[in-house]
Amino acid sequence: MMQDSNAILLLSCPDRKGLVARLSNFIFQNNGNIVHADQYTSKQGKYFFMRIEWELGGFALSREEIPVVFAPLARQYEMRWELHFTDYVPRVAIFVSRHLHCLHDLILRRHMGELDASVEAVISNHEDARELVEQFGMKFFHFPVTPDNKDSQEDRQLVLLKELKVDLVVLARYMQILSGKFIGQYVNRIINIHHSFLPAFAGSNPYQQAYNRGVKIIGATAHFATEQLDEGPIIAQDVIKISHRDTIADIQTKSKDLERIVLARALRLRLEDKILVHGAKTVVFE
Amino acid sequence: MMQDSNAILLLSCPDRKGLVARLSNFIFQNNGNIVHADQYTSKQGKYFFMRIEWELGGFALSREEIPVVFAPLARQYEMRWELHFTDYVPRVAIFVSRHLHCLHDLILRRHMGELDASVEAVISNHEDARELVEQFGMKFFHFPVTPDNKDSQEDRQLVLLKELKVDLVVLARYMQILSGKFIGQYVNRIINIHHSFLPAFAGSNPYQQAYNRGVKIIGATAHFATEQLDEGPIIAQDVIKISHRDTIADIQTKSKDLERIVLARALRLRLEDKILVHGAKTVVFE
Amino acid sequence: MMQDSNAILLLSCPDRKGLVARLSNFIFQNNGNIVHADQYTSKQGKYFFMRIEWELGGFALSREEIPVVFAPLARQYEMRWELHFTDYVPRVAIFVSRHLHCLHDLILRRHMGELDASVEAVISNHEDARELVEQFGMKFFHFPVTPDNKDSQEDRQLVLLKELKVDLVVLARYMQILSGKFIGQYVNRIINIHHSFLPAFAGSNPYQQAYNRGVKIIGATAHFATEQLDEGPIIAQDVIKISHRDTIADIQTKSKDLERIVLARALRLRLEDKILVHGAKTVVFE
Amino acid sequence: MMQDSNAILLLSCPDRKGLVARLSNFIFQNNGNIVHADQYTSKQGKYFFMRIEWELGGFALSREEIPVVFAPLARQYEMRWELHFTDYVPRVAIFVSRHLHCLHDLILRRHMGELDASVEAVISNHEDARELVEQFGMKFFHFPVTPDNKDSQEDRQLVLLKELKVDLVVLARYMQILSGKFIGQYVNRIINIHHSFLPAFAGSNPYQQAYNRGVKIIGATAHFATEQLDEGPIIAQDVIKISHRDTIADIQTKSKDLERIVLARALRLRLEDKILVHGAKTVVFE
Repeated sequence: MMQDSNAILLLSCPDRKGLVARLSNFIFQNNGNIVHADQYTSKQGKYFFMRIEWELGGFALSREEIPVVFAPLARQYEMRWELHFTDYVPRVAIFVSRHLHCLHDLILRRHMGELDASVEAVISNHEDARELVEQFGMKFFHFPVTPDNKDSQEDRQLVLLKELKVDLVVLARYMQILSGKFIGQYVNRIINIHHSFLPAFAGSNPYQQAYNRGVKIIGATAHFATEQLDEGPIIAQDVIKISHRDTIADIQTKSKDLERIVLARALRLRLEDKILVHGAKTVVFE
Repeated sequence: MMQDSNAILLLSCPDRKGLVARLSNFIFQNNGNIVHADQYTSKQGKYFFMRIEWELGGFALSREEIPVVFAPLARQYEMRWELHFTDYVPRVAIFVSRHLHCLHDLILRRHMGELDASVEAVISNHEDARELVEQFGMKFFHFPVTPDNKDSQEDRQLVLLKELKVDLVVLARYMQILSGKFIGQYVNRIINIHHSFLPAFAGSNPYQQAYNRGVKIIGATAHFATEQLDEGPIIAQDVIKISHRDTIADIQTKSKDLERIVLARALRLRLEDKILVHGAKTVVFE
Repeated sequence: MMQDSNAILLLSCPDRKGLVARLSNFIFQNNGNIVHADQYTSKQGKYFFMRIEWELGGFALSREEIPVVFAPLARQYEMRWELHFTDYVPRVAIFVSRHLHCLHDLILRRHMGELDASVEAVISNHEDARELVEQFGMKFFHFPVTPDNKDSQEDRQLVLLKELKVDLVVLARYMQILSGKFIGQYVNRIINIHHSFLPAFAGSNPYQQAYNRGVKIIGATAHFATEQLDEGPIIAQDVIKISHRDTIADIQTKSKDLERIVLARALRLRLEDKILVHGAKTVVFE
Repeated sequence: MMQDSNAILLLSCPDRKGLVARLSNFIFQNNGNIVHADQYTSKQGKYFFMRIEWELGGFALSREEIPVVFAPLARQYEMRWELHFTDYVPRVAIFVSRHLHCLHDLILRRHMGELDASVEAVISNHEDARELVEQFGMKFFHFPVTPDNKDSQEDRQLVLLKELKVDLVVLARYMQILSGKFIGQYVNRIINIHHSFLPAFAGSNPYQQAYNRGVKIIGATAHFATEQLDEGPIIAQDVIKISHRDTIADIQTKSKDLERIVLARALRLRLEDKILVHGAKTVVFE
């Protein structure tokens, strides 16, 4: 239904005078109606970021023509850019190990129509999630990982992701470290949830670290995966208060609620094409 | 210093195709450089809101010419609009009664350079604030109010505000109800702080109301004053957790911190020309 | 396993000198080890509240003897009191209509071992929840409600609750108003989730009310059900920020996350016997 | 006014059966009325913490007798303990450098009667604060610090603190590192505010660190000063959301509000004798 769908341009480039005018004219002169336009210029470095969403109904260019016509303009301004259509349903693979709360939450949201994505696969190094996943009619793939087979299993996972035409990988508490090779094939397309308020308590066992340090607030962080573990661009964070009365088990229980909400929020922002990555940071048009 | 200042257009109108392009072209064709552009279209009612800020340095139109040249465009689209310049320092009058925490906070922020406003007068129906106000070199005006002299005192206050060319009135816990006549002369230019999470606990003694109801969270609300008390468009709100252990005195202490922060945030948003009022609600471009 | 379980006394009475000593001596002289003791004395009204938890292992009195021996002491101080054992798993019935997010969340938490309760029945006036409920091996009961059969259906529900020996009723977005008769049989044993920050936006359609009023923060409230709708003692509340950009659908999505968390928190507090009701308010020993 | 004052015992010791009974009996048998009793037993390490507050009016022991009579009981249970009286007004010295927002806030709270402390001195390595401090009738001491005179200036500061009988030192954004010698004389009596969510962004320039890392939430931490900078026991923390739009200046402005509130909260907790330090962590009886 062409008339109900929108196109979205996500772009960034060095700041130049007239950029907003140039871009909005591109839409207007092709008879498009802008429904959202968010723009941001970093003061340091003078870099320009924009997200424009316009109605495809009545637009003078077909979906195939838009990138062709836009490309020269983009080259002129040295833009990095992406074009999306709101009626495309992204294909997602969820990686999980033994902590299933985030997976369960994503399944629930999918079930209730809150996440506009198609879960093509749930992939795990353990069997724990199989029953739940299959109960909801999704495909489960078990890739047991040992130090010896880690590389070959990753290769098999990559083949599977290609076969399933996966757009986006969600690490929903996946306890294996992905190789640079794997990450390199899905740059800014792997969302990880870390169960601490990064950069505090990076690495393993953040619940125990938080308990030992005696912090009064704990957090969770969703970020794009990069080779440097826990250092990828942050998409979303949230926190909750704790006290001396909270045991590690209490911290875990409270954190799980955070992790679910923060991961779901980050995923939704990505599915709505509201995130631009710039260096080690994100621009999020909420 | 023309070259360091920016112009800001705040406008709203019925949504029409090409509005963003039309407006950004107006700036671009006059050789302006847009530094911020925020735009929002309400889905209900299809109304368009925009805030554009551009550099005056190098702009083809003088400050006086801008409104003249812009007016026809505004008429064509049935816009309500305001034009501001970032180097103008708004003139503010603060009204206060006996609770001085908000006043004290505003003085502190002013003193530390956090509020870009000129406090022309502090006006009160009590003498409590005089010493503090005069200590910081500001003018204090005492208008004692009785049921009999309320109208005449308001008239005198209005005369004073005109004399001092006050742009903005801040009710920093002012315990008198302003008349429709007064408010009518400063529509969307009177910011009030109410010590509850409106619309909960409107009216008098919200601390006591919150205590009696046994809520677990209390709040504060900054809003534009309207004739219907506590029903004006909300600018900012914030909350803090309480428990059964909190006495009314504890609630008051916690609330005061909220009130200070929420009022300061609302005032800053207004001073930065980031608020548009539409019906009973605000659009805040943060 | 007697040795791993604890006893919990929840009590309230007019404040008297020596109460803490008297109560801790009762435990100590019977060779009990106190693991938690929370106490609170209201300044208004001078009322005393306490929660004591002690190990049953080595305690001189059997479970049956404790209330017998404690009763005279309780009478002397005019106490209202409850005795609980931590190894008893409360039997819960969940009522739901067509919004299933809270139900789904409770099922998830039950599944992950986060809620120490036995869900004996899910009761609904619609069929929507049946598939999900039965998928997780729980019993679903459909009680369609019309103005004509409302009373008789409630009577049948009450019979069912008795048969199933239900201790606690959770209204997880149940859209029928329960009669005074029903509530009277489960005083302080029915937890309702209201999708607003009460007392703001009581009644129907709080999302729409919040949208219309233009609030900048929305909330959710878990409370004990009373005959006066939405006026029962509040157990837990939480909030989230919104902006003018949030449509009613966005408000609903954000609110659902709140509702799930707030209801789960309230239920957990109740299952851990940490709530005392006093008049229209709660004392929550977190 | 003996009859209006309370005594407070803060104590910790290895957990033993009957501790609560033993302690509450101590009060009761001397005809005391307990107005607050908070207790906590750590599950790891089985350590017991308690805060008891009782009315001195009618109590059988004089202020001088209480520690004498209590000492044998404390020895028996290997307690660390402190005895406080609510009518004693602690004597505080505030250290500050050039950022005056926390100092200003403490002065304001003192002025409004929110902080029950006597500010005996404001000490700074700069002159910036003098005018403000003297304006409010407090004593200002300037100790310029260079690498050469650092030790001798600290010695002079210590002499001054002794002379003024200071109980508590508040580092309200003091940019000098105190020596182990200084800290050793005020163990758990120096409260520092760090302008980040520790342990994230310890060390210098946390605003810049937060900006560079692209976090979505910033925080502030009040803690007791220890030799290991920024590693002392945490008393209070709070956070606020930021976005990519926030410049370092914006982060600073938002953080300052946090710092003021978190420091004031930590100080109030200390003045109300609600903090116990245990190892690297605090037990806070709120």
